[in-house]
Amino acid sequence: MEMIDANRVHELLDFKGLIEALETAHQGGMPKQSDRLIYQEPNPQGQPDIFIMLPAWQPQEGILAKLVTSFPNNKARHNLPTVNSVYVFINADTGVTEAVIDGEAVIFRKTSSDSALGSKLLSRPDAETMLMIGAGGLAPYLVQAHLTARPGIKNVMIWNRTGANAAALADKLAGLGITARAVEDLDVAVSQADIISSATMAQTPQLKGKLLKPGAHVDLVGSFTPEMREADDDVLTRASVFVDHRQTTTRSGEFLGPFERGVITPDDVRGDLFELCQGKVEGRRSAEEITMMKNGGGSHIDYYVAKYLMDRHHGRPFATSCSS
Amino acid sequence: MEMIDANRVHELLDFKGLIEALETAHQGGMPKQSDRLIYQEPNPQGQPDIFIMLPAWQPQEGILAKLVTSFPNNKARHNLPTVNSVYVFINADTGVTEAVIDGEAVIFRKTSSDSALGSKLLSRPDAETMLMIGAGGLAPYLVQAHLTARPGIKNVMIWNRTGANAAALADKLAGLGITARAVEDLDVAVSQADIISSATMAQTPQLKGKLLKPGAHVDLVGSFTPEMREADDDVLTRASVFVDHRQTTTRSGEFLGPFERGVITPDDVRGDLFELCQGKVEGRRSAEEITMMKNGGGSHIDYYVAKYLMDRHHGRPFATSCSS
Repeated sequence: MEMIDANRVHELLDFKGLIEALETAHQGGMPKQSDRLIYQEPNPQGQPDIFIMLPAWQPQEGILAKLVTSFPNNKARHNLPTVNSVYVFINADTGVTEAVIDGEAVIFRKTSSDSALGSKLLSRPDAETMLMIGAGGLAPYLVQAHLTARPGIKNVMIWNRTGANAAALADKLAGLGITARAVEDLDVAVSQADIISSATMAQTPQLKGKLLKPGAHVDLVGSFTPEMREADDDVLTRASVFVDHRQTTTRSGEFLGPFERGVITPDDVRGDLFELCQGKVEGRRSAEEITMMKNGGGSHIDYYVAKYLMDRHHGRPFATSCSS
Repeated sequence: MEMIDANRVHELLDFKGLIEALETAHQGGMPKQSDRLIYQEPNPQGQPDIFIMLPAWQPQEGILAKLVTSFPNNKARHNLPTVNSVYVFINADTGVTEAVIDGEAVIFRKTSSDSALGSKLLSRPDAETMLMIGAGGLAPYLVQAHLTARPGIKNVMIWNRTGANAAALADKLAGLGITARAVEDLDVAVSQADIISSATMAQTPQLKGKLLKPGAHVDLVGSFTPEMREADDDVLTRASVFVDHRQTTTRSGEFLGPFERGVITPDDVRGDLFELCQGKVEGRRSAEEITMMKNGGGSHIDYYVAKYLMDRHHGRPFATSCSS
């Protein structure tokens, strides 16, 4: 059994290769078995502590167990990140554990590459201006992943509720050779951007659909509970709506409320990454079309990423037999 | 995150301390949450491949995820053990993974100490003769654990379907300073033993209850599916029947068939380790009484053992708040 630490994860999960691997994987299908098991513990101070196990098994190929904790009081109590995780990758021919992998690094690379695949399939190839909403842990990865998918982007804006964090992210990106600037007026920035990626913990929509530029692509990452929501109803009605996986619509506040109020229906969700990568649904239809993809994740994506990581680690080309 | 390898596990999980820790833990109760998730993949050559996740969470104290695979063709195809596993121990105050632990070593120590606790509570304190049925991976641990619980044992017999393996186990035990001898006639050995521990993959009972000596204690380890069974109906009717946990009776072939045929009823199961350790039910009532405990395991026991291991690893005395 090997330990694969964060540095090695970042080395192995190059954005270009990972986005291509995700595209290849979505041309096939899901691992044969995948599921989730969630435990919650109430917290007197607010949101509950959560422990999630996401297993996936592709026979003869790999078994992945992703273990995640989300302890909302960590920052205040221990100055530690809310989310911690490890991935355990098991050889599915022998049942022997091959590697225990730093989960945080995988999650950053995985989530941002999932979004970038959406952009590669849906945004305008000539996109030049990107707006990053939110300056949390994921934000620098989302910027890098989107720049990999759309290398024509010349102008990166960052907006964050606490402006100082937007400026700090711009500095961090400068260190990576990426020119970005913090902006103060979200609405103005929204009206200028070709690609908007939003990764916040918002429960009240702050991204206004009526301001979107014709041809814009919106990437929604934040909402992973029914209570969370980043984009308002106008985004849903103006954009052609996509998801990474159909199941996302059953879990995210981005859809649950709007479905209930009849703003859009599940039939208005045009497709997911499987349907797009398999050519079963059309992506962008015109230069003026506004597109949106809600990134919801799922154990199948964790599986693909872990398999790509293990293949790279062993110097093998990426391959998966997932097809169900 | 630390890796705790097999050598270190064996060092930390001393039988005496572990049996005492299990007794202490059973005076309290279960971890607040515990469960299991089982995946199966059919195998053209026979028994299915299995992947099991057993999580347990005691708030503020620990989260354990035990991951186990059972791949029945491993021996023939790869000369590898059928069962492979790892334990992931997470700090339940922070959600951060503290250790990834070699599972095979833990399982050997845990299962044998669970059985030995049953013997400590149920067998005659003056037991002198032990019979080990089966010479698989667990057998040397069961012998050592039973000898720890009952140091008066002077005579260890080993019976195995393939006699050569019994002889090899006797040699192995000699290397550990334990005198044991392989025996050829199971029935004769059964009639002589004060303590009988059986750990086989039998589907047809081979331990005959009518041969049991008055005062004997029977420890059944093998059957963990409805199809498996080690002891015949006479063992159930002659012995006072105990289990490590009540849920064991719903899973093991040691009970399912006999319950269905009315040989005994669930009410005939006198108690489990919680009831025994908490003094809610009486153990052995007389020197002549025959007792039996079916060892079925469960994620709560994995949790106790992992907590004991972590406490020892950090030089702390064992403690757990489990009480539900």
